[in-house]
Amino acid sequence: MNAHDRIVQFLKEADGYVSGEEMSETLKISRAAVWKYIDHLRKDGYGITAVPHLGYRLVSVPDKLLPHEIQSGLNTRTFGKNIVAFNTVGSTMDEAFRLGMEGAPEGTLVCAETQHKGRGRLGRVWSSPRAKGIYCSLILRPRLPPGQLARLTLTAAVALAEALRDAAGIEPAIKWPNDILVGGKKLAGILTELRAEADQVKFVVVGMGINVNTSASQLVDGAASLRTETGRIFNRVVVLRHILRSFESWYAVLGTRGRFDPVMKAWKARSATLKKRVRVTGPGGMVEGLAVDLDTDGALLVRQDSGVIVKQTAGDVVHG
Amino acid sequence: MNAHDRIVQFLKEADGYVSGEEMSETLKISRAAVWKYIDHLRKDGYGITAVPHLGYRLVSVPDKLLPHEIQSGLNTRTFGKNIVAFNTVGSTMDEAFRLGMEGAPEGTLVCAETQHKGRGRLGRVWSSPRAKGIYCSLILRPRLPPGQLARLTLTAAVALAEALRDAAGIEPAIKWPNDILVGGKKLAGILTELRAEADQVKFVVVGMGINVNTSASQLVDGAASLRTETGRIFNRVVVLRHILRSFESWYAVLGTRGRFDPVMKAWKARSATLKKRVRVTGPGGMVEGLAVDLDTDGALLVRQDSGVIVKQTAGDVVHG
Repeated sequence: MNAHDRIVQFLKEADGYVSGEEMSETLKISRAAVWKYIDHLRKDGYGITAVPHLGYRLVSVPDKLLPHEIQSGLNTRTFGKNIVAFNTVGSTMDEAFRLGMEGAPEGTLVCAETQHKGRGRLGRVWSSPRAKGIYCSLILRPRLPPGQLARLTLTAAVALAEALRDAAGIEPAIKWPNDILVGGKKLAGILTELRAEADQVKFVVVGMGINVNTSASQLVDGAASLRTETGRIFNRVVVLRHILRSFESWYAVLGTRGRFDPVMKAWKARSATLKKRVRVTGPGGMVEGLAVDLDTDGALLVRQDSGVIVKQTAGDVVHG
Repeated sequence: MNAHDRIVQFLKEADGYVSGEEMSETLKISRAAVWKYIDHLRKDGYGITAVPHLGYRLVSVPDKLLPHEIQSGLNTRTFGKNIVAFNTVGSTMDEAFRLGMEGAPEGTLVCAETQHKGRGRLGRVWSSPRAKGIYCSLILRPRLPPGQLARLTLTAAVALAEALRDAAGIEPAIKWPNDILVGGKKLAGILTELRAEADQVKFVVVGMGINVNTSASQLVDGAASLRTETGRIFNRVVVLRHILRSFESWYAVLGTRGRFDPVMKAWKARSATLKKRVRVTGPGGMVEGLAVDLDTDGALLVRQDSGVIVKQTAGDVVHG
């Protein structure tokens, strides 16, 4: 832990005021350095009061996805051990991809308070109102052939749905392939990108956009947030910790060779698509019928009215 | 065409000496500019003699992969219309990938006289002695799902084999998946990398390393060059033009939906692997048996001695 994080820790654990002298002695830094760090923390949004002869006191923590706040008490092995946080960014996907190319380790997280070029699947815009949602991308280095990326995407959907259940007490559904729904509305989206050789993934970036404290007026049509769904405001840092933990443990399940079965089972249990009439628009055109099953590679099996079963590996689903 | 390229053209088409004054007038640039460009060309390795009152005369073209030399007489539609050439580079793959991320158009070619981190498949080193081979990477933006990348790799192998046949009068064989052999030795290699979303390729970089004028002593064990095979020295620019033309036309075949059949047929006709006993070491371990066929997704079908046919989507083949 660096001096900056240790001062936050110190202030958080203090019972009332802490003198600059005490921090200076314990952390073995100068009084001037303590003052400099306090100033820095205030600029980051920490509410810190200072009283002569008493010292400093932490009165509020900012509503921000700050690396040391996320990592505080985060008991993961690799997910989120390395965090790059932005106030404003074009897209966390692009930043994470760049970091992946530079060799950033598995589990590196890129997050931002807002994105001005937030992206969803198939080049769509992902609305990212400042400090209302969680906009993040995780770098992974799985041993998967590129053609099995869909498995990782479905795994991310299951992990995210369970994390949001744990964080907010809701039961999200999953719309094929990986939209997270609540009450039929879109609560979160997942975007997966990879760099690969013909037969070997170099790295994957899994992006997640979650509407957390977004108000109804800030949401696009057909979208929901944890706030609109529950009437409560959430600590985004806590929600993000749930996500990192859940995703890491599901990722470990997938990592064990041939263990896609548990993911499929969990995915099917939350599916908003299976047993429904669907229209799937994919690269090969539109298919209409009954979504009968998920294939072992993550494809959707659609039984047309003719009885023919068509396999859709990609595309957009319209239910109903 | 810029002034630089037009001066080269002018000198090439001239019958003997051309005066600076004539170039200045025709190209509508100052005499000083003509002199500056001539100086530039000499630094690029062009042999240009200058005689007072007569002017300039081109006596030799450098043995270099210069963009305007490659493009001169290149009748492709997109392949090589945009060229980034290096004297020395880490790896043309990495440069091309970076350009791909910045939005470089389909057909953009990156080439280098030498690479100090030239890569082959599966992270291996690709030896790149200066000015002896063709080390290049092409950016493509095909409409393929990521799982079908193998099709593009096989297409590149067929295109490269045919280009080398046309350029040098040899009949190269293809070792699964995409090594180009001549007389059982490796003449060229292909490396494919992509950036993709779960269901959509963003771009592909196809890298090719071809041993052209490499001498026997510069080759690693088991490798050949056009020179060692034919006893002749080749103009690398001409060879590269053959490659760009051949690849563009095969790529167009693949681009037409469902037209992988012609590629498979051409690939099989040149296969050094089919009907042979092979040991294939892939991500799932080693498989030994008879290579019976190529599957429609580019995988190799191996019949083990037990009679069971195993599908290998990736890996290394040892013939034997």
